[in-house]
Amino acid sequence: MSELSRTGLSINRELLAKFDLAIAKKGYKNRSEAVRDLMRDQLVSEEADKNQVIIGTLTIVYDHHRPNLTEELVEAQHQAGSQVLAATHVHLDHHNCLEVVLMKGRSGSIRNLADRILSLRGVKHGQLVITSTGKGLK
Amino acid sequence: MSELSRTGLSINRELLAKFDLAIAKKGYKNRSEAVRDLMRDQLVSEEADKNQVIIGTLTIVYDHHRPNLTEELVEAQHQAGSQVLAATHVHLDHHNCLEVVLMKGRSGSIRNLADRILSLRGVKHGQLVITSTGKGLK
Amino acid sequence: MSELSRTGLSINRELLAKFDLAIAKKGYKNRSEAVRDLMRDQLVSEEADKNQVIIGTLTIVYDHHRPNLTEELVEAQHQAGSQVLAATHVHLDHHNCLEVVLMKGRSGSIRNLADRILSLRGVKHGQLVITSTGKGLK
Amino acid sequence: MSELSRTGLSINRELLAKFDLAIAKKGYKNRSEAVRDLMRDQLVSEEADKNQVIIGTLTIVYDHHRPNLTEELVEAQHQAGSQVLAATHVHLDHHNCLEVVLMKGRSGSIRNLADRILSLRGVKHGQLVITSTGKGLK
Repeated sequence: MSELSRTGLSINRELLAKFDLAIAKKGYKNRSEAVRDLMRDQLVSEEADKNQVIIGTLTIVYDHHRPNLTEELVEAQHQAGSQVLAATHVHLDHHNCLEVVLMKGRSGSIRNLADRILSLRGVKHGQLVITSTGKGLK
Repeated sequence: MSELSRTGLSINRELLAKFDLAIAKKGYKNRSEAVRDLMRDQLVSEEADKNQVIIGTLTIVYDHHRPNLTEELVEAQHQAGSQVLAATHVHLDHHNCLEVVLMKGRSGSIRNLADRILSLRGVKHGQLVITSTGKGLK
Repeated sequence: MSELSRTGLSINRELLAKFDLAIAKKGYKNRSEAVRDLMRDQLVSEEADKNQVIIGTLTIVYDHHRPNLTEELVEAQHQAGSQVLAATHVHLDHHNCLEVVLMKGRSGSIRNLADRILSLRGVKHGQLVITSTGKGLK
Repeated sequence: MSELSRTGLSINRELLAKFDLAIAKKGYKNRSEAVRDLMRDQLVSEEADKNQVIIGTLTIVYDHHRPNLTEELVEAQHQAGSQVLAATHVHLDHHNCLEVVLMKGRSGSIRNLADRILSLRGVKHGQLVITSTGKGLK
């Protein structure tokens, strides 16, 4: 971890007051930690733009009674080979499944896999989170 | 617009250098302006109904060598009791962990848990996905 | 000892050849003797108290290309309702899946669920681990 | 999948009757499938003996309030590098955690990792399942 540096910023009082209130509610102990997190979010989305290797987690909710759906989901993940690290299921009720798929690969490729899964009939809702492998973030 | 205020922040040199590079590409003239934009994005209004039961999945990347962090993560999840359904880890490299926490509960409560975890020092990046239990979706 | 009976079984050639090789190394004189030993091992007495709440984790390896298998696996788990806490998959190769099912319930009921899953055609190998909820152990 | 072959076995009537009763309770549709599963179990334990690449799943129950335990568990898994595929947690109650670690590697190495984790103070109970990568089983 590199050494800390002090930086001065100009922020108008009203924005700063609202921000302090929001981060206090979220449990941040100080403003620097909250701003560092925002900066890291920014850098993570940069990584994704560059088609670097990223981590993606895809959350989906689906009805497993939909014909062929569970097989299509497994097939899509297998075709992606080693890009799919693991997947965890929770059976929400008699019909509904929650599944989270953990992936690692080039962002373009991970987005394609996510899009393929999200477009399957019977997948009710889903969202892809793109994050970093952590190597570029201190 | 209220008057400008100066605030000092502690940021490590490497993060600051990468951030400056990223915002320069985006056309920002100075660091303060870029941070103000990030703060405004942060202040988005949250979902109105905090009492609906939702599914949340929280994706985080963290350095498990950070003192106390793994214990704080486990403690936060245990205090949330049955709201945490399961969590899956992948060890990305010698330092970095990927963890996805699967949660079910009132949206206000799930957001609080996610915020508490995201604000822990050493959590490099994270994002909460809010989705449905599937019952209301056909 | 009761009289010997002849029974005919369908086994694919490759499995039979590997089995014959393995038992020859162990010193078996013929296949019937080896299978009789396996059957006796199978007939071990089960735990006395089928009403204790236990934790079970079931590890299975299966070929997801087997028709209907993935749907039968999901269906079996859903019918078990809240006894199935979560399940994690890893895609081992183009054909083979590793799945671990985390369960909590009365031991009789968890064993039945495990047996139902293990007896599905296409489940190549599997094993149930019975452990404690931790409450009674100091 | 290789073609099916018929094989005849001599089994005494009493053993066969008990076996048929036991497998019927477990849900097997016919005797051949049950015997094939026993043969595969046998071959899987052979693979482990030969220090071939195997799949291991380690189930543990532990008290996360035990000082340093969660950090030691994460550290042990990280040191094992890519042999640890994923790990899934369920928070059983305020004290007790269920964790299942999915591993792939040479059987000697996987056994060592399991032994190291099982010997940590505060791990109340645990069991390693050795299974196959599925490639050698039809």
